[in-house]
Amino acid sequence: MCESAIDAVHPRFSKKPASFYKGFKIALVQMKVGADKAQNIETAVREIHKAKSQGAHIVALPECFNSPYGTSFKIALVQMKVGADKAQNIETAVREIHKAKSQGAHIVALPECFNSPYGTKWFPEYAEEVRVSGTVPERCGGALYNTCTVWDGSGKLLAQHRKMHLFDIDIPDKITFRESEVLSAGDQITTFEYQGVKIGVGICYDLRFSEMAHLMAKQGCSVLIYPAAFNMTTGPKHWELLAKARANDEQLWVALVSPARDTEAGYVAWGHSTLVDPWANVVAKLDEKPGTLLADVDLSIVEEVRSQIPVRVQRRTDVYDTVLKTKC
Amino acid sequence: MCESAIDAVHPRFSKKPASFYKGFKIALVQMKVGADKAQNIETAVREIHKAKSQGAHIVALPECFNSPYGTSFKIALVQMKVGADKAQNIETAVREIHKAKSQGAHIVALPECFNSPYGTKWFPEYAEEVRVSGTVPERCGGALYNTCTVWDGSGKLLAQHRKMHLFDIDIPDKITFRESEVLSAGDQITTFEYQGVKIGVGICYDLRFSEMAHLMAKQGCSVLIYPAAFNMTTGPKHWELLAKARANDEQLWVALVSPARDTEAGYVAWGHSTLVDPWANVVAKLDEKPGTLLADVDLSIVEEVRSQIPVRVQRRTDVYDTVLKTKC
Repeated sequence: MCESAIDAVHPRFSKKPASFYKGFKIALVQMKVGADKAQNIETAVREIHKAKSQGAHIVALPECFNSPYGTSFKIALVQMKVGADKAQNIETAVREIHKAKSQGAHIVALPECFNSPYGTKWFPEYAEEVRVSGTVPERCGGALYNTCTVWDGSGKLLAQHRKMHLFDIDIPDKITFRESEVLSAGDQITTFEYQGVKIGVGICYDLRFSEMAHLMAKQGCSVLIYPAAFNMTTGPKHWELLAKARANDEQLWVALVSPARDTEAGYVAWGHSTLVDPWANVVAKLDEKPGTLLADVDLSIVEEVRSQIPVRVQRRTDVYDTVLKTKC
Repeated sequence: MCESAIDAVHPRFSKKPASFYKGFKIALVQMKVGADKAQNIETAVREIHKAKSQGAHIVALPECFNSPYGTSFKIALVQMKVGADKAQNIETAVREIHKAKSQGAHIVALPECFNSPYGTKWFPEYAEEVRVSGTVPERCGGALYNTCTVWDGSGKLLAQHRKMHLFDIDIPDKITFRESEVLSAGDQITTFEYQGVKIGVGICYDLRFSEMAHLMAKQGCSVLIYPAAFNMTTGPKHWELLAKARANDEQLWVALVSPARDTEAGYVAWGHSTLVDPWANVVAKLDEKPGTLLADVDLSIVEEVRSQIPVRVQRRTDVYDTVLKTKC
């Protein structure tokens, strides 16, 4: 990715005579690369001068010396409390986004329906025609969707995912819910690129459908992010299991971001926003209270597990395959 | 299934005049149905006579009054110690099968390579041309397979599964293994019927491939059985997670049966034979020592979870699908 940075000090650009190389001195700068780009460049320049003063003829900097993004980025999962006051919900989201950014977050994920109480009766009232970042009930003509939008730092819309699998379940005496009473379903698999890293987006119930995750992985995703609002029945049963199952089967990072638990709400969210690495280790997890999970996503682990347990190339696509029927 | 048993005492077989029914007495026999068929019939006959002596005109017995198989059967997972002595291995297997049967087991599953130490160097020596029950290295012409056969009580071969995904992994300093150095892979998905219940078979590394499990579920399986030999690295990492992931995603029972741990062996098995229900609950599990797990498989739970969280009918097959390319 960052070859040009290396090429600038690569021997093939040297024009010295052959005799020069008989006793040439090379400096390999094994520098610490952090999230602060200016700091990275400052370190590199300082080390180049230092090496030169010590007699180095060639100075080589590491791959991606100015950026940690190639192998790692910081993600923030905002587990905020969502109430009936829409303006307050948005204010909370904006405040948490700024806070996460000031703490070094490169990607900030908000929970499912961060602007609206979760419940089919609320969705028409809270629906937005102008989309805002995160997951909200979206109004489009006569239809409502449960929609996650992804924005870059300059305000450009990178992606928009409409929940593809509506949450219609009926566990007697525990939880009955029918999103389909009010919502329409999306029909697209959604991915976007961030600094060359492909990231897939699903919403809550989408998480139960392994084929969708598999197709996002097949399209090159190293990270899947699911804004979600599991409840007090499905949360303890399947929340962490599903995150680990997707991470392990597809060998990628999985982030689930939930609203905080509000026991006074009509729909009580499980909370427990969770980040799982490609070995299926839970690397960070919140409890049920409001909070923001801020953690590094190290993409070198994706390559590590995929090379060590190479299921991706061992799949028997001569016998079976998962196919996408629509155009993304 | 057992309609004929009910029909025998069903009113539509009665030829009495209409007046008869004005004051007729019906007896509904809510009897306990167990694994002992003779005992079930004895109970039914006793209750019929009792009801008749109390004036019943019609006696109705429950569905499947003679058999528990329709909703439940007993499975035995034999976690035996496998050593270098082939005759001893087979003797152990036969003894455990008889023991499990005497304890009421309807299905007995043996571990992967129960007749041979697990290791590519052993497979040619231990390979069988005549197949025996369970999973063994199979010789077929010049090729060797890792094969599981399924036999009914009368000695009829019900199914034969050749491991479809060969175990080739390389986790540095932990576990490196290449089954493909010696073995060939099967190319069929394998299911069989037991008393009207469809059961799928996979072997060990097959468990990592969700599409294979999904296709077995699509073919109607309510239970998947995987003879397997995870090791001391992949066992603690992924053994239970994979069992729960398959059970939860496909909403069926999953049984994993491992050899017992032998720390002197070249390949040290994880053990922990496990039975997971369709809610992803671990209902029974062994430790690493030799033992047999004997437990009821209640098929009504399959229907329960599939009706309450109906992901099977909510899959968006208009957007994606998992397809089988070969004929089973």
